[in-house]
Amino acid sequence: MYVILVYDVGEKRVGKMLKLCRKYLNWIQNSVFEGEISEVKLEELKSKARAFMDEECDSLIFFKSRDSKWLYKEIVGNERSNLDIII
Amino acid sequence: MYVILVYDVGEKRVGKMLKLCRKYLNWIQNSVFEGEISEVKLEELKSKARAFMDEECDSLIFFKSRDSKWLYKEIVGNERSNLDIII
Repeated sequence: MYVILVYDVGEKRVGKMLKLCRKYLNWIQNSVFEGEISEVKLEELKSKARAFMDEECDSLIFFKSRDSKWLYKEIVGNERSNLDIII
Repeated sequence: MYVILVYDVGEKRVGKMLKLCRKYLNWIQNSVFEGEISEVKLEELKSKARAFMDEECDSLIFFKSRDSKWLYKEIVGNERSNLDIII
């Protein structure tokens, strides 16, 4: 399954969320990840995220597709994932 | 065409980008929009965004699909788009 993940979490939890998501998906921009993942691994990711998320104000959005071929990605401006960042 | 748009722009340009994107798509979270849009309207949006973007550090990512049926959306936590915000 191909997934696009976007998170929006409080500043204190950004580092933790970024680290968690990077274990499962490829980082493409600020709070956006994409990649192939199994249902089982996706449930694992969600469960680990829920453990520290504040569900009152944080959110995670998943766009799931059976195949990435249904999606065409286009980037305008700077493609951040080419840069290394230090967390 | 169905589009998911995610922007990552400098703080000074956030308000402007948000306002622009809202004219064309539906806001679903912080810097994430989705919706049906024609190729022509999408080009218009990109051109208006480029006019004020700093392409050295800002970026816009589009995930395009011919049909939203290829995508399933899931939200964990707070669904921000239910709230009104004042910009």
